[in-house]
Amino acid sequence: MTARTLQGFMELLPQEQLVFNHIKSVIAHTYELFGFVPLDTPVLELAEVLLSKSGGETEKQIYEFKKGDTDLAMRFDLTVPLAKYVALYNNDLTFPFKRYQIGKVYRGERPQKGRFREFYQCDIDVIDRDELNIVYDAELLAVIYTIFSRLELPAFKIYINNRRLLSGYLASLNIADKTVEVLRLVDKIKKLPHEVFLAELRDLQLSEEQNNALLDFIKIQGDNATILAKLGALAQDNAEYTTGLAELKTVVDNALALGVPAQNIQIDLSITRGLDYYTGTVYETFFDDYPQFGSVCSGGRYDNLSSVFGGQKFPGVGISIGLTRLFDQLRAHNLLSFPKLTPNKALIITQGEEFTAAAVKLAQALREADIATDIMYRSCKFKKKMEYANKIGIPYLIIIGEDEAATGEFTLKDMSSGEQSRVGQAALIAKLRG
Amino acid sequence: MTARTLQGFMELLPQEQLVFNHIKSVIAHTYELFGFVPLDTPVLELAEVLLSKSGGETEKQIYEFKKGDTDLAMRFDLTVPLAKYVALYNNDLTFPFKRYQIGKVYRGERPQKGRFREFYQCDIDVIDRDELNIVYDAELLAVIYTIFSRLELPAFKIYINNRRLLSGYLASLNIADKTVEVLRLVDKIKKLPHEVFLAELRDLQLSEEQNNALLDFIKIQGDNATILAKLGALAQDNAEYTTGLAELKTVVDNALALGVPAQNIQIDLSITRGLDYYTGTVYETFFDDYPQFGSVCSGGRYDNLSSVFGGQKFPGVGISIGLTRLFDQLRAHNLLSFPKLTPNKALIITQGEEFTAAAVKLAQALREADIATDIMYRSCKFKKKMEYANKIGIPYLIIIGEDEAATGEFTLKDMSSGEQSRVGQAALIAKLRG
Repeated sequence: MTARTLQGFMELLPQEQLVFNHIKSVIAHTYELFGFVPLDTPVLELAEVLLSKSGGETEKQIYEFKKGDTDLAMRFDLTVPLAKYVALYNNDLTFPFKRYQIGKVYRGERPQKGRFREFYQCDIDVIDRDELNIVYDAELLAVIYTIFSRLELPAFKIYINNRRLLSGYLASLNIADKTVEVLRLVDKIKKLPHEVFLAELRDLQLSEEQNNALLDFIKIQGDNATILAKLGALAQDNAEYTTGLAELKTVVDNALALGVPAQNIQIDLSITRGLDYYTGTVYETFFDDYPQFGSVCSGGRYDNLSSVFGGQKFPGVGISIGLTRLFDQLRAHNLLSFPKLTPNKALIITQGEEFTAAAVKLAQALREADIATDIMYRSCKFKKKMEYANKIGIPYLIIIGEDEAATGEFTLKDMSSGEQSRVGQAALIAKLRG
Repeated sequence: MTARTLQGFMELLPQEQLVFNHIKSVIAHTYELFGFVPLDTPVLELAEVLLSKSGGETEKQIYEFKKGDTDLAMRFDLTVPLAKYVALYNNDLTFPFKRYQIGKVYRGERPQKGRFREFYQCDIDVIDRDELNIVYDAELLAVIYTIFSRLELPAFKIYINNRRLLSGYLASLNIADKTVEVLRLVDKIKKLPHEVFLAELRDLQLSEEQNNALLDFIKIQGDNATILAKLGALAQDNAEYTTGLAELKTVVDNALALGVPAQNIQIDLSITRGLDYYTGTVYETFFDDYPQFGSVCSGGRYDNLSSVFGGQKFPGVGISIGLTRLFDQLRAHNLLSFPKLTPNKALIITQGEEFTAAAVKLAQALREADIATDIMYRSCKFKKKMEYANKIGIPYLIIIGEDEAATGEFTLKDMSSGEQSRVGQAALIAKLRG
């Protein structure tokens, strides 16, 4: 039997896993810092529940199978499970409901570089009944900014737009009937060669004037204040446009108040997100110097999370980080540092098995003081133990031999400076805690 | 479309999820405290890889399906994936390899109370090449003791035994040829009515003398020192027995040195674990007052983790907590407290939307100081906001109205004492950090 892992499924060495987990825990910690509560839903759901909202491409990628008489499917995102959860438990939830979920999702895509069949999504959503305050749309920007800056990721911008503004503008151009097609095409402007984009635009058969007005609109440039001022001069007679513009301005203003630096938010009128699902604010995030990564964090505002399950209206706003792919890209471009990480602060080695009792006693005292400590119990030459200590990259090494056992003063070696000293147990604990 | 969750799949409300996650994080933190590094393997594997080691009952429970031409299966434990991982990456790993893994596993059992089809296992294993020091078997006891006591779980005992001791004893009784059957039966002594157990024992057709010697042996009682002394007087001519006994003594002695109180470890000669897989130390853990929970944490020592994948020998010792079932049982018996938990330290509410800017600015300062803070942005009556604050059980409430916005002194309410005061931003941060 050959040991093999499926293609498209990430599996990391301990060194990398520690870095991955560090990133995951910064994300979770920041989500909690902003008042989001954790949620965990099953990986397997009834196929009819998961498929209620999907279509086309996604449906083909779903891992779906029968067990007994039941059609099952593995979740392909965390949004449909959230919709189900809110529809099922809304009587027991407190609204506004701010939930985060970090979990694996599954898509049986053709395996190719940088595409994963199992990957982590890290989602936040704020859901309310009937109506959701627009300031939450700004809060999501502050959450994402905080995560990316705490992780010291490369320079990035969160691009935002408002679909209501776009729809209102299209209505003012008398092309409201083609809103879906136009927004879906505009979404592709950065992905398609410009010639192809223009050809597809021609296929929509707008008038020359409408075409130009649309192209001029989505290419409006400048800093946020400039863009907002330019937008203020347009389409003032359309109520949807006016509302969308007011929302966009509120989101930018509050994001700045929440501490997001101006250079990390950029209004971009060509960002629409493909999905009709989104109805207001939309987000995409790109690294300034690595546009080829694509959007590493996207989302938006929607009118009704649980529409397929009927009942009440639950408007919300959400954003998602595709962690597995992001990690893979950062690693491939040497944008992550992999120090010789170990969760341990100290490693204890002995100069013979007769000192195991002393080592065990010291380890117990250190762990009681919440200092992560390992003992190397292998019966092998002292030189081998030193090699092991160097290999795992431990910050402090503690050596116990005859002298140390007799005096109760342990040899402590600072592995980064190479400095060596003799210290008693209490001093050792104080030093390693500090 | 009706929103439904599959039977046998746990889904929690936020209050419960926070408690569940707290338990999970104490487990992970303690594993790291003892020097274990995290591992994350795919939920889906090639069916042939997962099925390489299973048989009978387990095989029927596996979620197995085809995608394209590939036979896939969802993992049913974390041990087979570890065996695959070590076989695949051993050249890149540092041994002794101490890994922990906390993840969901899947078994399509008939749904019944207290049985889950998706559940968390929290595993640790220490793996070495060729030979693994016996002191690691003691370290696992210290890990489990630390977790259970930090979680303030009800009084418990970790029962230990050594299969080498048992096999040696059976050899000394001249029933070595029935070792597998005898150990499998002994494993059931607490689960079967005693009459049934005796009937099954008769079916093994041992002599009267062998029967009695076996029954006397597995019923040896007393504290650990007494049992070890009684064992010392038996079967001294069998080398396997002598080795097993020495191992058992080393494990008990070192567990005590590692700070495990004597009342939390109990040698029990009837603990064998059913699986032939185990070759030395075996563990089971029971709550003193809730034996009906069954073993909440089990494991043991094995000679070769990756035998089905051929190649080198990787002996190891491991133990696993079945977290989902444990949580469910503790909750059902009211052994968990569910305080009105929220990850937030403070909630900010305003006496009107005109104070949103001040609220947002304060929230930003608190979060920058790593104080988890929420703002309630809903436009609703002040009374409604107070109701919300009471419902989510926030420790501190901050109120911003006309006075507060003008003076920069916020109203701070300690929600547990009801005490109210006026404090500036710096004092507020100092107070909430403390």
